[in-house]
Amino acid sequence: MSDHPEAPVAPVEAYELPYYVAVFTTVRTQDQGGYGETNARMEELVKEIPGYLGMDHAQTPGGLGITVGYFRDADALAQWRSNAEHREAQKRGRAEWYDSYTLHVAKVERSHSFTREQRLAEG
Amino acid sequence: MSDHPEAPVAPVEAYELPYYVAVFTTVRTQDQGGYGETNARMEELVKEIPGYLGMDHAQTPGGLGITVGYFRDADALAQWRSNAEHREAQKRGRAEWYDSYTLHVAKVERSHSFTREQRLAEG
Repeated sequence: MSDHPEAPVAPVEAYELPYYVAVFTTVRTQDQGGYGETNARMEELVKEIPGYLGMDHAQTPGGLGITVGYFRDADALAQWRSNAEHREAQKRGRAEWYDSYTLHVAKVERSHSFTREQRLAEG
Repeated sequence: MSDHPEAPVAPVEAYELPYYVAVFTTVRTQDQGGYGETNARMEELVKEIPGYLGMDHAQTPGGLGITVGYFRDADALAQWRSNAEHREAQKRGRAEWYDSYTLHVAKVERSHSFTREQRLAEG
């Protein structure tokens, strides 16, 4: 959700199945007042959800943002979805921060990761 | 997969269920020779796969890239996965262009879209 300038640069690795992805694709408005604070708060809040696994985020400057949240099961997603503070943030997002967005919630059937270090170690 | 500087800025809207997402999260190396051409070719090639629906892409400068491909069913994904030219590009990606990546393939269970215009029109 945020631009994570401080985060180490690596995608999350494939989790053990089963798990879910919530793919949130956004284009933001010019009016971003309060977005940063709310977004930082949401990133903290989601970590309290049992079954939350992790998150990836990418933002094309002036373009599309994609946040992928990883959750162990549908219960974890339902908890996050019904969280009161999260719902309030969503409402404000529609009113102020987002020009358009799409959410795709999906159950992962297969996944794998590659890292150069691992490959060199294995090769 | 590319940085799409020319593409109109909007996420794909929610497709009618059922469909699949292929979430590809990457960190690239310093060595990007040939990447742009191959990537552009892959973006054309995937459109020929029956059941290919669309794509979203975001790239944090110097950071994470996320490409989400949307496909109607597992057959469409299998066709793309086994495409000879795509496999060759993947091989080169591991050898040269990617520091690390993860692929999550998942079946969408629910999705929805929001656009500001639509909301104003409905409101």
